[in-house]
Amino acid sequence: MSFIIDWKEDRNLTLLVDFYELTMANGFLKSGVGNKIAYFDLYFRKVPDNGGFCVFAGLQQLIEYLKNLKFSSQDIEYLRSKNMFDEEFISYLENFNFTCDVWSVNEGTPVFPNEPLVVVKGPIMQAQFIETMLLLTINHQTLIATKTNRIVRAAKGRSVMEFGSRRAQGYDGAIFGARAAYIGGCTSTACTIAEKLFGVPAVGTMAHSWVQLFDTELEAFRAWVKAYPENSLLLVDTYNVLKSGIPNAIKVFKEELAPLGIRPKGIRIDSGDITYLTEKARIMLDEAGFEDCKILVSNSLDEYIIRDVLSQGAKIDSFGVGERLITSKSAPVLGGVYKLVAVEEDGSIIPKIKISENPEKITTPGFKQVYRLFDKYTHKAIADLITFNDEIIDDSKPLEIFDPIYTWKRKRLDNYYAKKLLNPIFESGKCVYTSPSVKEIREYSQNEVSNLWDEVLRFDFPHKYYVDLSSNIWEMKYSLLRKHNLKYR
Amino acid sequence: MSFIIDWKEDRNLTLLVDFYELTMANGFLKSGVGNKIAYFDLYFRKVPDNGGFCVFAGLQQLIEYLKNLKFSSQDIEYLRSKNMFDEEFISYLENFNFTCDVWSVNEGTPVFPNEPLVVVKGPIMQAQFIETMLLLTINHQTLIATKTNRIVRAAKGRSVMEFGSRRAQGYDGAIFGARAAYIGGCTSTACTIAEKLFGVPAVGTMAHSWVQLFDTELEAFRAWVKAYPENSLLLVDTYNVLKSGIPNAIKVFKEELAPLGIRPKGIRIDSGDITYLTEKARIMLDEAGFEDCKILVSNSLDEYIIRDVLSQGAKIDSFGVGERLITSKSAPVLGGVYKLVAVEEDGSIIPKIKISENPEKITTPGFKQVYRLFDKYTHKAIADLITFNDEIIDDSKPLEIFDPIYTWKRKRLDNYYAKKLLNPIFESGKCVYTSPSVKEIREYSQNEVSNLWDEVLRFDFPHKYYVDLSSNIWEMKYSLLRKHNLKYR
Repeated sequence: MSFIIDWKEDRNLTLLVDFYELTMANGFLKSGVGNKIAYFDLYFRKVPDNGGFCVFAGLQQLIEYLKNLKFSSQDIEYLRSKNMFDEEFISYLENFNFTCDVWSVNEGTPVFPNEPLVVVKGPIMQAQFIETMLLLTINHQTLIATKTNRIVRAAKGRSVMEFGSRRAQGYDGAIFGARAAYIGGCTSTACTIAEKLFGVPAVGTMAHSWVQLFDTELEAFRAWVKAYPENSLLLVDTYNVLKSGIPNAIKVFKEELAPLGIRPKGIRIDSGDITYLTEKARIMLDEAGFEDCKILVSNSLDEYIIRDVLSQGAKIDSFGVGERLITSKSAPVLGGVYKLVAVEEDGSIIPKIKISENPEKITTPGFKQVYRLFDKYTHKAIADLITFNDEIIDDSKPLEIFDPIYTWKRKRLDNYYAKKLLNPIFESGKCVYTSPSVKEIREYSQNEVSNLWDEVLRFDFPHKYYVDLSSNIWEMKYSLLRKHNLKYR
Repeated sequence: MSFIIDWKEDRNLTLLVDFYELTMANGFLKSGVGNKIAYFDLYFRKVPDNGGFCVFAGLQQLIEYLKNLKFSSQDIEYLRSKNMFDEEFISYLENFNFTCDVWSVNEGTPVFPNEPLVVVKGPIMQAQFIETMLLLTINHQTLIATKTNRIVRAAKGRSVMEFGSRRAQGYDGAIFGARAAYIGGCTSTACTIAEKLFGVPAVGTMAHSWVQLFDTELEAFRAWVKAYPENSLLLVDTYNVLKSGIPNAIKVFKEELAPLGIRPKGIRIDSGDITYLTEKARIMLDEAGFEDCKILVSNSLDEYIIRDVLSQGAKIDSFGVGERLITSKSAPVLGGVYKLVAVEEDGSIIPKIKISENPEKITTPGFKQVYRLFDKYTHKAIADLITFNDEIIDDSKPLEIFDPIYTWKRKRLDNYYAKKLLNPIFESGKCVYTSPSVKEIREYSQNEVSNLWDEVLRFDFPHKYYVDLSSNIWEMKYSLLRKHNLKYR
């Protein structure tokens, strides 16, 4: 059961926008180019944690933002008070009507550096204005879904619960972070509102304060199982795990639950050496006849610690992961960018490039599509190919792909099939897409990730997945680069 | 001018709560201890980035949350659907009435590990319930104010603008992050809504897309200064800074602004080697007669890069700092905790301790106050002293303070005065405190930080500021520790 509501309806984030989007929009209008049709690509350049891929997330919130985009009378009053904007522009905003086309990758899709994930086509004033919210929404949720996916893979089938709200970066960091974590593979969250809003299962039992409030740990445990006989997960590390917590838990399981014929749920350990304590705990529980009693651990976990303790033989059934997941602590930024790639002049699309002293900051111009190429027999993903939007990949014929930098590195594909990654989301400002539920997105994502080669899934030094340019795109980009280089060399 | 609104009024975050706060609250009620009076401390154990102190922030939002705390009919419906909570508890929530006392440090105050920053006294059901939002609010804003303060100090008087919205962790990460950044010392933000909501000055000019949209960079610059002659800050790195951007900027300044008698505002460089490019840029601008034209830089800056480029002689007037500030990238978590420290039994306050295998996780029990001790002549802060709430520091008499771990390290203070850090915020659920404006908080903070010794301000290996316990607190804690150790050794 879930009470999914449209979070945007009662919340006006229109002015959550970099101020330069406003000065530019006003300037475009003033310069007579406000309605020039422009094309923008949203993409990132680097996978956080030097991982092999990201898990794309945030599209549903992006759609809700764009659907509800309007300027309140308070917004207008504020803008007018800045004494920087023309009345023509203010009146444009008062009657704002979103008319762009938007394409996007599906949420949950594994994605790679330098491929467009969201493409926007529309009047420059509008397409530019939405930059901040597009980036903020996609950067955040994709970051957290990506980190979570690493942590979940480290747990090797054990459940991972998202426990990070209190250390998140702001309220939405917690709320949409819990959503993204579920998409990335968590089984549940401690963040209650994420169940109310999105249907992410919310779970939780007790904190140390429960144990402290009672005169003794034994009394505290007894009170708990009396209140929740079916939900007896006891936190055993308030005083001493092995000498107090677990013996008291076992005593209460035997004295309070056994007579009711109820099996205990589990114990949680939140401090100390996880490997040592869980191995001892398992033995103690088993000897007491509670082989089915689960051991849950928390305390500053991430994919590296989980991998380590499991390889040491720690006896753990599930992980509660907090701050290192909800902030993607070891790599807390996804550097998505949103770049102008083309403009329309007299009905034709003119590719636009941005040069930089840093070669990785040079853009790939043009109005584009992304194809994912799969092996016909293994269904594993082989490569992504960036083409012009109207290029057609005929997968009945062999295809030669090549590295866009080391162009001598070429590969001929025979038994493959191609899938378009960018789907229409808005057409002339009208939403033409329905978001799946987070549960569906989560399942889709797990399936798509399973189509990647193990080499790409590695945490450290993964194999670099191919993201290639079609010959047409490559030639256009190269000729623009040559032209600019000749000018400034 | 600002349009400060109460962000909480149209936004229900009541269920932004760890699920265990709800199971515990219901359990407390069921166990007959729901209205037992409990005392909680909020504090952190470690300064991010191994810095010397944090800048406390977020109190205003905490107050707004507590003032508006209620359960909507939708919240109630959701909770009922979980089939875990008693009707008595649900009815308690339906008629929820916050009755706790709350004390807090003022926003902007430099604060240190292991001292209570927020103290809550009230019925355990309520005092426990608010844990998640208290921590989330204070952890986030304190983290960002702290990071910003480091960056601003590195800039040595040059202005620092907050540019990070697009890479923030969610919408509130951007919005409240901009607020915290201003408290920490930024002069302005790109986040427009932060001006509307809090009065943080919003600024911005152009992105690369402005330059790309026009046929040439020269045309783009000309269109800009025609639209904004008084606000001519030009982004000069779209094609080539020294061969195209700056020469074109100078040309436009001369041809478009000089005839109007207007001086140019500045240029912005967002890529390449900052030291090299700004030194060259300064010479070119000076030679063209634009000595007053400012140079603004951005591109993945933080306190370390700013310190480095300034020490190399880079010619920079102001910094735009994005992702590394708004996520506190190098240390993206403040690990604030909220711990039960006492309960009332028959009218007297019983201190409660939490033991841990990790000694730094052991709590300091008791209902407490924090005094900051200042030198009477230099007005520099000497130490903080944690006392029982009713202890009085008579600063007309000498005072001996001592390290709570290395107790032989003692210091006698003669010429000092003591200030209480914890002030009443709520009394029996009623707010008794009015938040200053962010501008006032920012000024207060700068003054308080200037009262710290330089040794504490150092970025790396700062001197550890003394946070000591009064003899009374120390003796009570030590005796509880001994008692527990005897039990489990």
